[in-house]
Amino acid sequence: MAEAEKKVILTGDRPTGRLHIGHYVGSLQDRVKLQNSGSFDDVLIMIADAQALTDNADNPDKVRESVIEVALDYLACGIDPTKSTIFIQSQIPELFELTAYYMDLVSLARAERNPTVKAEIKQRGFNGEVPMGFLAYPISQTADITAFKANTVPAGEDQEPMLEQAREIVRKFNTTYGDVLVEPEVLLPSREACKRLPGTDGKAKMSKSIGNCIYLSDSAETVAKKIRGMYTDPTHLQVKDPGKIEGNTVFTYLDAFCDDRFFAEYLPEYANLEEMKDHYRRGGLGDVKCKKFLNRVLEETLEPIRTRRHTYEQDIPGVYDMLAAGSAYAESIAAHTLSEVKDAMRINYFDDASLMHEQIDRYADR
Amino acid sequence: MAEAEKKVILTGDRPTGRLHIGHYVGSLQDRVKLQNSGSFDDVLIMIADAQALTDNADNPDKVRESVIEVALDYLACGIDPTKSTIFIQSQIPELFELTAYYMDLVSLARAERNPTVKAEIKQRGFNGEVPMGFLAYPISQTADITAFKANTVPAGEDQEPMLEQAREIVRKFNTTYGDVLVEPEVLLPSREACKRLPGTDGKAKMSKSIGNCIYLSDSAETVAKKIRGMYTDPTHLQVKDPGKIEGNTVFTYLDAFCDDRFFAEYLPEYANLEEMKDHYRRGGLGDVKCKKFLNRVLEETLEPIRTRRHTYEQDIPGVYDMLAAGSAYAESIAAHTLSEVKDAMRINYFDDASLMHEQIDRYADR
Repeated sequence: MAEAEKKVILTGDRPTGRLHIGHYVGSLQDRVKLQNSGSFDDVLIMIADAQALTDNADNPDKVRESVIEVALDYLACGIDPTKSTIFIQSQIPELFELTAYYMDLVSLARAERNPTVKAEIKQRGFNGEVPMGFLAYPISQTADITAFKANTVPAGEDQEPMLEQAREIVRKFNTTYGDVLVEPEVLLPSREACKRLPGTDGKAKMSKSIGNCIYLSDSAETVAKKIRGMYTDPTHLQVKDPGKIEGNTVFTYLDAFCDDRFFAEYLPEYANLEEMKDHYRRGGLGDVKCKKFLNRVLEETLEPIRTRRHTYEQDIPGVYDMLAAGSAYAESIAAHTLSEVKDAMRINYFDDASLMHEQIDRYADR
Repeated sequence: MAEAEKKVILTGDRPTGRLHIGHYVGSLQDRVKLQNSGSFDDVLIMIADAQALTDNADNPDKVRESVIEVALDYLACGIDPTKSTIFIQSQIPELFELTAYYMDLVSLARAERNPTVKAEIKQRGFNGEVPMGFLAYPISQTADITAFKANTVPAGEDQEPMLEQAREIVRKFNTTYGDVLVEPEVLLPSREACKRLPGTDGKAKMSKSIGNCIYLSDSAETVAKKIRGMYTDPTHLQVKDPGKIEGNTVFTYLDAFCDDRFFAEYLPEYANLEEMKDHYRRGGLGDVKCKKFLNRVLEETLEPIRTRRHTYEQDIPGVYDMLAAGSAYAESIAAHTLSEVKDAMRINYFDDASLMHEQIDRYADR
């Protein structure tokens, strides 16, 4: 099938808040590179509002407001609508139909076995009342991926069980109904070290509720303030004391954002990050100096993002138009796939004349 | 809400085979009466192919072929497309979207608690692997009912837990997002005695696999043959022996189909069914005579159905056109409801200009 050989990326985010630098490091910067690589026929980036609603059904306002925030963050980071398609999940009705048919191919036991979902259910608690939609979201994700015949899904290692479930559904569908769907593969983040950026308080996870995130939309002042309050090495009390690098958020962030060229410009006493770390380890390098440097390094990334975001913020109707156009394009692909799916299942009663003629023949024989 | 006061019926069948006289007695004859009563603004009759696929995913041909068989059975029984709307579930994409959003409002525990589904899972077995789609089918049924704002759902008592789950979802939706959906009520079959017609072998349930059904599409010869082989009272060996009425299928069927007028015409020695039963009880009335009478009684119902069915069988394209028109009409209603649902959830980004203007205002303040 020629179509299957197209190189298609499907990725995206759940709109439950503005995006932060953890998103940038973990996925957004890779997406921009993938988009600009010219290696893909289609780069589709989905704002997964319907998925966000699976565990935010009682707070649709948060989801809705985040849709436009995430779109602004995408554009600010350099996602280019002329090269990538940004679209909103809920605007593609075909995804819901595919989900429904795939749900017939997945058992409850299999859905409950998904380790990522299991962990998420444990983490969220849900007071023992997991919404059916949440349990089914990997099936809906399979619909998202397969609707566009995406073969490449950039995601973290924790998403591998999702992709495995998607491949299972694809195989089961293709075996049962015919070869229509394409098996996706995960594309892991490019920089191993950067898979997870901790919160500014050193906690493993950035969390809006804890307030330990640096957002892409934060002002320069806010970023500076958050860096000033950042967790370092609590035993590094005086400048002259030896300090630890491991678990020191300032250095974890520098690992993610710093290039050698920044030293020449902002901290010429070191040639590179290793020299700086050595000094910190042996004592004599203060946190304030490190944080100021980190601030400058981060601003090299954040300042252009902030500026671009501000421009787009002044043209919300333009962003809506972009999302509408992206959603229309995405729907055209999904509609094509759904039609193939229904052809294979032979439930396209009104489009496939052969189905009617079979019936006519059946009664002509009587 | 004026709309809620419309009187709307939603009912239907899973297309997993042709319909039999159990369907006729239990629902079809009532539907025709309801349709002709003039008491309803809309009578919608759904061929639930997507629901049939929830436990027939590996046999779509059976489902597909049954769609047209069920449609023919409907028309044969007197469902009149100028008074009722016959449509195919899978042709209404809005139903799948509604299902997805309702799934966020129902917990796994609640879905598993549904006694009807529980019983069906036990009965079907599924080798311990209940398809997610099957577990979720009462949620999809809620989408079917609410998409058309149906307040009346003709169904058997065993369907009451389905309606209860639907009402729960309606209340949860209306409380969470705003008053959009209408709570449905069940309308039980009109003749208490006729709720369940046993199989011709006396088994409680008519089942295609057992082969104990009389189909609406059976030829007169087939019906006669099935009646000749019908289960009666196994202790009633000779004509002169006393016979039992309870559990005697011939009399159960007569209870469902016989009117006094048939006696004058076909069995004038009795004034009514009670007299006939009395004779059978005290002995002296043979099974052959009873069966011949039942055959005549049944043919009074079946012959006109068979004739109408034959006419429609010769015009399959016409039946397809009717189904396409019915589905288009049903979709127009469902689309209206879905739009109201998305309005209430405030995820209709491109249709509700106020959402965009909120965003514009938010950024204008910065």
